[in-house]
Amino acid sequence: MPIFRFAIAQVNPIVGDFVGNLELIKTACNQASSSGADLVVFGEMVISGYPIEDLAKNESFLQDSAESLANLAAWLEANHPNLDVLVGLPLADKNEQSWSVATNSAVLIRAGRVAGKYDKHHLPNYSVFDEYRIFNSGSDYFSFEVKGHRIGVVICEDIWQEGGPVGHTKAEGIELLCVLNGSPFEISKADTRVQLVSNIAKKYNCAVAYSNLVGGQDDLVFDGDSFVVSANGSLVARGKQFESDLLLFDFDSANHISAITSQSVEPADELWQIWHALRLGLADYVAKNSFKSVILGLSGGIDSALCAALAVDALGKERVFGVAMPSEYSSQHSLDDAADLARRLDIDYRIEPIADLVEPFDKQLGLSGLAAENIQARVRGSLLMALSNSEGHLVLTTGNKTEISVGYSTIYGDSVGGFAPIKDVPKTLVWELAKWRNRIARELSEIEPIPENSISKPPSAELRPGQVDQDTLPDYELLDALLELYVGQRKSVSEIVALGFERELVSKISRLVDSAEWKRRQSAIGTKITAIAFGRDRRLPITNRYR
Amino acid sequence: MPIFRFAIAQVNPIVGDFVGNLELIKTACNQASSSGADLVVFGEMVISGYPIEDLAKNESFLQDSAESLANLAAWLEANHPNLDVLVGLPLADKNEQSWSVATNSAVLIRAGRVAGKYDKHHLPNYSVFDEYRIFNSGSDYFSFEVKGHRIGVVICEDIWQEGGPVGHTKAEGIELLCVLNGSPFEISKADTRVQLVSNIAKKYNCAVAYSNLVGGQDDLVFDGDSFVVSANGSLVARGKQFESDLLLFDFDSANHISAITSQSVEPADELWQIWHALRLGLADYVAKNSFKSVILGLSGGIDSALCAALAVDALGKERVFGVAMPSEYSSQHSLDDAADLARRLDIDYRIEPIADLVEPFDKQLGLSGLAAENIQARVRGSLLMALSNSEGHLVLTTGNKTEISVGYSTIYGDSVGGFAPIKDVPKTLVWELAKWRNRIARELSEIEPIPENSISKPPSAELRPGQVDQDTLPDYELLDALLELYVGQRKSVSEIVALGFERELVSKISRLVDSAEWKRRQSAIGTKITAIAFGRDRRLPITNRYR
Repeated sequence: MPIFRFAIAQVNPIVGDFVGNLELIKTACNQASSSGADLVVFGEMVISGYPIEDLAKNESFLQDSAESLANLAAWLEANHPNLDVLVGLPLADKNEQSWSVATNSAVLIRAGRVAGKYDKHHLPNYSVFDEYRIFNSGSDYFSFEVKGHRIGVVICEDIWQEGGPVGHTKAEGIELLCVLNGSPFEISKADTRVQLVSNIAKKYNCAVAYSNLVGGQDDLVFDGDSFVVSANGSLVARGKQFESDLLLFDFDSANHISAITSQSVEPADELWQIWHALRLGLADYVAKNSFKSVILGLSGGIDSALCAALAVDALGKERVFGVAMPSEYSSQHSLDDAADLARRLDIDYRIEPIADLVEPFDKQLGLSGLAAENIQARVRGSLLMALSNSEGHLVLTTGNKTEISVGYSTIYGDSVGGFAPIKDVPKTLVWELAKWRNRIARELSEIEPIPENSISKPPSAELRPGQVDQDTLPDYELLDALLELYVGQRKSVSEIVALGFERELVSKISRLVDSAEWKRRQSAIGTKITAIAFGRDRRLPITNRYR
Repeated sequence: MPIFRFAIAQVNPIVGDFVGNLELIKTACNQASSSGADLVVFGEMVISGYPIEDLAKNESFLQDSAESLANLAAWLEANHPNLDVLVGLPLADKNEQSWSVATNSAVLIRAGRVAGKYDKHHLPNYSVFDEYRIFNSGSDYFSFEVKGHRIGVVICEDIWQEGGPVGHTKAEGIELLCVLNGSPFEISKADTRVQLVSNIAKKYNCAVAYSNLVGGQDDLVFDGDSFVVSANGSLVARGKQFESDLLLFDFDSANHISAITSQSVEPADELWQIWHALRLGLADYVAKNSFKSVILGLSGGIDSALCAALAVDALGKERVFGVAMPSEYSSQHSLDDAADLARRLDIDYRIEPIADLVEPFDKQLGLSGLAAENIQARVRGSLLMALSNSEGHLVLTTGNKTEISVGYSTIYGDSVGGFAPIKDVPKTLVWELAKWRNRIARELSEIEPIPENSISKPPSAELRPGQVDQDTLPDYELLDALLELYVGQRKSVSEIVALGFERELVSKISRLVDSAEWKRRQSAIGTKITAIAFGRDRRLPITNRYR
């Protein structure tokens, strides 16, 4: 049979931006067509963006999705009548038996017409996914021919379920299975995907084209990293991670596929992946919400230093504004480290002491103890928001996953901000990333962005004289290990104690985590990089005596 | 056949409080038994509290639930060996094909043993419900006999689905169908429930005992209002609304049931219901989270006045603390109205002027315009939080649904607080409730709690000279009508325009609503009383160009 050429178009849509998304799709079609492709495969829901949450219940949203599809079909007929295009989108699907009014679908456009469609069978409703809430599931199969080769279509979760539509592949004689994905980044997930797909390819003796979205969408980051596996399970090529890409392949048979664009098959270093996930999450949140710049408090500590370095990588140094807000309890080294950081990053930097702002509160209300500590953090929060209001910056809040887990922060204080770049990064990983970023700089003979002192000194909130985090919290190595068990693996206190940890400590940490739920609900959105982040995965009642 | 006596036990559990919930259950069993009952029917998940959200994924939580059941069975054997008890609880249910590890179940305890169980068939996954996320659905039926009468068991959503297990009632010869519910209050829902159950009774020729939970749980209020309908569809009796209750009935046949405890069959006035839902939601949030008292800012306006009056009804005047925080833009009438309110309610009242706290910010940062307006609100937020830290009160935030919908508030300012009593109350309903509460006071010859002036004056944020809400927003009658269409009925801009509204205005409001999503995610939890409240029902991506 003749060889055919296909493309995987890895693009970065915005939820609800039907016009902009159509432009991305057309540009990729132009590029694929001029490279001689017969077929181009996009990601899940590329027409509407993904995930659309309860927008799937708006009939007008579904109408706009259908119109966008019709526009694309007409444009393809006029411009690329011989290019087959597979796109994902939500389609209206009224059904008396269901609360949902839509399907999560893939459509084949051929010669200006919708030549077939597939509705996702398996609707994930765990972790960040709520698809059973908003979609009706499909039960039909769909395949088509290109130059005599039979091509199958499924969507994302369908390949993660045993006995799903993938099991039907053999019966239909599928040679190439196209999988449209909206698969968010998670530490170590890239390898899991390739392994899973490779097993499917071998089991059903068909090649698999895994096409993923790319880009940040609120707290999710789609990492791209699309790839093709041949029927013997070997990886033919993979696309860029954290960037848009167009991959081209010549398909001879399920075991003979050649990559036209040559890409590495090696996965990137894990810290590299995490850094780029955080960077893309921040960059896209800023861009897609039309902010011009960000502002953040620089305490001289490691969290704000890492966030500032990330922001410069994501946005460029001209769009990052740093503010030191020293109090009477701030040490000179803190101010020195903050200034050093700003110099290294070459960003706008100012010093706004808070003494004259805090003192009137203390005096008028007679504050002491915790109230006197918190008012400092709240004055800083108000100060940053005032600068945001005056100058138009998005405020970044610099809390890490460890302190958010246990509520070690001041609500309306240091938790103030529109985006939390390292919300899902445990403290121990914060240090690792800082060292990694400095090492990369050294390797490139660039200035190390993060002051060594910010990495090596003991962390402190500096809200009272001589305070350090470990006055209140256990050592961060131990704390992060406990949080991984209690939050990440949902183990109970007793189960963790059975692993050899001290009961009193485990109980204390579990109480802190559970009672910080309200604070977490009030905190900014931020990039998710682990299996269980707060907010979307671990949703607990606030009123809850299960401590 | 002999007559048997059954009780509906309408109790108020707390999620995760297995020990406390068991005490509630035992107390109700003692009472039912001493009243000669043969059977007592509790609400959905009474053993664990409801809804349990992702706690259903914790194996230790499920173990505790099973242990609690075993404890109850042993206690019943020792104390009431002849009392049959139907309780709801989550049970472990591992299943390779599923992400969930539990069922939402009802269990019959008879003579100290688990004599049978029923797993909920229909798992609601819309609006506030996410049960498909956390439970496996059942497919078996369960019925049992008491003194020769056949009793069926289903759970909540099961009766709302055509063709569900209710359709099986006739085949099993069920005379009395017991429905265990965790059904939250919603305006006008009480009548809907009775109508639905009445239709089921007639259709399947069986009596129905509808047993509901009561109490506030985060933003949900279970209103109780349990009832019994005979097979001819007539309401035999209903329980108290918004209070714990024990209802007793003698069952002769499906058409001959007599209420031992005599209760009204008339539903209460709608404003009465709303007031008591808000009152119970606030009272239980405070009690179940172990707060002693609440504090709130009193602006002289209607929102804070209504919240203060609600708080006094919910908690008693000794536990409510009011603070006036006048600025240079506050009118004398605002301060007078706030003082008048505090006098009428006889609550602790203090005045904390903010001029000396705001001025240093204005001076140091050179603030003007929006930044100067917002800093006043933020200083007030910090002030209330400082008093909360010093004195231990829960801060109430007094925003109404209308202003939260369109983002007409200052994030980290007037939105500061742990609980938002009127978060789901549109502004026009705020006025109605205020007038209603004053009328009730007049009828009881009590002091009207809310100053007439707070009700009649034009609303203003008083953040700049002469400001009124209608500088920025359309008239509240019009705005609430638009919000009901756009949010409450999910209509599109075009659909609303087709109803006769001005396109420019509708577009503006839709943009405001959609772009306020981030603010809403950061706002306090509050009592839900309408079909679509923000947060749990209307979940939209923040990054979203669908405007």
